[in-house]
Amino acid sequence: MKQLHKQSASARKDEEMPASDTPPYSPKSLKNPRSLPRSLNYILKEQRLLFVLIGIVIGATFFILQPSLSSSDGRGVISIANRESIDGLGHRGQTDFGRHGYGKYTNGVGRVPVGIGNRRKRIVVTGGAGFVGSHLVDKLIARGDDVIVIDNFFTGRKENVVHLFGNPRFELIRHDVVEPILLEVDQIYHLACPASPVHYKHNPVKTIKTNVMGTLNMLGLAKRIGARFLLTSTSEVYGDPLEHPQKETYWGHVNPIGVRSCYDEGKRVAETLTMDYHRGDGVEVRIARIFNTYGPRMCLDDGRVVSNFVAQAIRKQPMTVYGDGKQTRSFQYVSDLVYGLIALMEGEHIGPFNLGNPGEFTMLELAEVVKETIDPSATVEFKPNTADDPHKRKPDISKAKELLNWEPKISLKEGLPRMVDDFRNRILNEDEGRGSR
Amino acid sequence: MKQLHKQSASARKDEEMPASDTPPYSPKSLKNPRSLPRSLNYILKEQRLLFVLIGIVIGATFFILQPSLSSSDGRGVISIANRESIDGLGHRGQTDFGRHGYGKYTNGVGRVPVGIGNRRKRIVVTGGAGFVGSHLVDKLIARGDDVIVIDNFFTGRKENVVHLFGNPRFELIRHDVVEPILLEVDQIYHLACPASPVHYKHNPVKTIKTNVMGTLNMLGLAKRIGARFLLTSTSEVYGDPLEHPQKETYWGHVNPIGVRSCYDEGKRVAETLTMDYHRGDGVEVRIARIFNTYGPRMCLDDGRVVSNFVAQAIRKQPMTVYGDGKQTRSFQYVSDLVYGLIALMEGEHIGPFNLGNPGEFTMLELAEVVKETIDPSATVEFKPNTADDPHKRKPDISKAKELLNWEPKISLKEGLPRMVDDFRNRILNEDEGRGSR
Repeated sequence: MKQLHKQSASARKDEEMPASDTPPYSPKSLKNPRSLPRSLNYILKEQRLLFVLIGIVIGATFFILQPSLSSSDGRGVISIANRESIDGLGHRGQTDFGRHGYGKYTNGVGRVPVGIGNRRKRIVVTGGAGFVGSHLVDKLIARGDDVIVIDNFFTGRKENVVHLFGNPRFELIRHDVVEPILLEVDQIYHLACPASPVHYKHNPVKTIKTNVMGTLNMLGLAKRIGARFLLTSTSEVYGDPLEHPQKETYWGHVNPIGVRSCYDEGKRVAETLTMDYHRGDGVEVRIARIFNTYGPRMCLDDGRVVSNFVAQAIRKQPMTVYGDGKQTRSFQYVSDLVYGLIALMEGEHIGPFNLGNPGEFTMLELAEVVKETIDPSATVEFKPNTADDPHKRKPDISKAKELLNWEPKISLKEGLPRMVDDFRNRILNEDEGRGSR
Repeated sequence: MKQLHKQSASARKDEEMPASDTPPYSPKSLKNPRSLPRSLNYILKEQRLLFVLIGIVIGATFFILQPSLSSSDGRGVISIANRESIDGLGHRGQTDFGRHGYGKYTNGVGRVPVGIGNRRKRIVVTGGAGFVGSHLVDKLIARGDDVIVIDNFFTGRKENVVHLFGNPRFELIRHDVVEPILLEVDQIYHLACPASPVHYKHNPVKTIKTNVMGTLNMLGLAKRIGARFLLTSTSEVYGDPLEHPQKETYWGHVNPIGVRSCYDEGKRVAETLTMDYHRGDGVEVRIARIFNTYGPRMCLDDGRVVSNFVAQAIRKQPMTVYGDGKQTRSFQYVSDLVYGLIALMEGEHIGPFNLGNPGEFTMLELAEVVKETIDPSATVEFKPNTADDPHKRKPDISKAKELLNWEPKISLKEGLPRMVDDFRNRILNEDEGRGSR
């Protein structure tokens, strides 16, 4: 088994398996080793051993007859076969895809279309149990591909992919990308990195290691196996931009020694590595610079403005605005991003490409939309701004429009209600969980 | 013994030891093991063994009486004691220090002043066999400190420190900082990284690894042993600056995906790591941003403008000017930089501090000075400029002046002749070496 990498002291409630799966603990047999011969005797008597053997044969037969169920490669794979969606969350993965006319990628949901079987790709998604990653995985699985998710569950959650556990084309590996891994795949979507300030500032050195060693490891894998590699970079590489909106040619305005630098500089150097592997080793690479994105499965309370406002409004708390609230952001609905990532991966252009929604909102305008959507009585509370927070950010997406034929289709007013349902459920469950303790 | 890290295919002629130091090879005793009893007999006869024992006692006594000579820690140390400067290069280390009134650090050259022995520091200098590193080591040794040099000899050269081989306070470890190392020291000067474009572009991924893993390893060491850590960053973190001259508060203008990015972004992220270890773990850190520096022991033909011009003028070749020759640089003599680094390490301020000479020259003006100094008949040849080459760069050093009480003292016209002597000797030796082959 792959060693479990403990990365932070943050709570990991979601990683515990249900207690019923583990064998009952039997302290006696450990404390009294002298009674071992007697229990051995017990096992040997009464054809008990024979029945164990019969059980083994039955189990083996089952797996031999269904080879796809035993296709795990033995490297620390969590493959929980024959287990349907446990908690009713299964529907989430199939909500927003196949609606927007991206016919090329909508081969139906959940089943492999006839005839596509032998063309299906093996794809690894690092960070695939995270917010964006899990939506991407849903889309790739729906398209008919074999998908391996790598996640260390620092910010990723099993709930985000639990509805896929029963699918033989899905596999989940608990692994930290800071360590190398060997896999045989055709494409690598490299998303693994905490992406919200509250998470990436938690252990800045680890954030840099994830960006540098993680990207190095995945690029090394891509080089070794000839896979295509897609880096999800970020609009943060533009820092607090002096050019507005930001084109891909803009070099950015980033503080190298600030408290956010671990993420900004880490992602910049990940881009550098990606281009150096391309130039030096001929690795097929793609770079996406992702702007603010929202949707179901975002972390609650991760400090990002959309999740903050929505969670606060649902909880009947005032919405916290940092600074004067006039700094602007653009908000992209997650399914738009997923289509952009796939278009980039499948296309012929390296990038970098801005993937974001150019619709620009001030924090106060966003608060207004959240208020309209959730609770007309919601209020706003002002707090001093955090260090290095960019004043405005808005993508120029003409390059992606022209070369990838991509643009976002879902407006904030359309997308926000879809997110609110998910958040309401989770906050409700959270409160119930607290109440029952 | 520490494993030898082969990092590049570049020639390493300078690392071979003189053949006269190795014991003569005796194939007979190996090929005829049956003759061993006879040779044993030979040794036992005639009191030969007794004399060997006497020799051992003499040797041991020598080391017991001079304990400092046996202070090596046995970790892959190349300590060649009792060996005076071999080739007349010994004087180089003592040329330029103790002249400029930095009384605090000039306790005489080559000998430990009386009474300083118990206060002397243990200092490691990574990249200590390189151009700047070796001058720093000379100064620290001259001050009376114990100095350990770590170098992988990618661009460092043994010739730069060979005059120190006989000094018991000097130690040389062949080690690549990309791998961790355990040492017990009080201060860490972290210089290790190829610094000229021709070298850092040679293997861009390795350049990033050196900057990230190398800095991580040395910061980890500093944290573990409570040492003070000084990072030598670079003016390249300012990229092609939009602010002129550059203050330390300027965030820079760097292309994250260009061919020079491995160095620029690598150093930026090294600064980030340094500040994160300071903020998160309380490591005592110092950051210097070094501007163009020249002096004896610079690599010949490393593509840097000063060494290029000087080498070309000495070889009677035309001096190559890239672009129109109107881009400007500031040139700092290496001894000024060394005093700045020591003042920063010993002072109470973290930085970053610009260390450079604010005197600004265009490439054509520099060519003129080289012409005057070396050969009035030297000519200039224009070539197209390389990608991402900054148009101008000039340090604002008011912060270092105010807080470190430091400023450069040696002008280009003073410093250049000191470098020319060294270059002339080396180019002459090079030509002789070629001629004799």
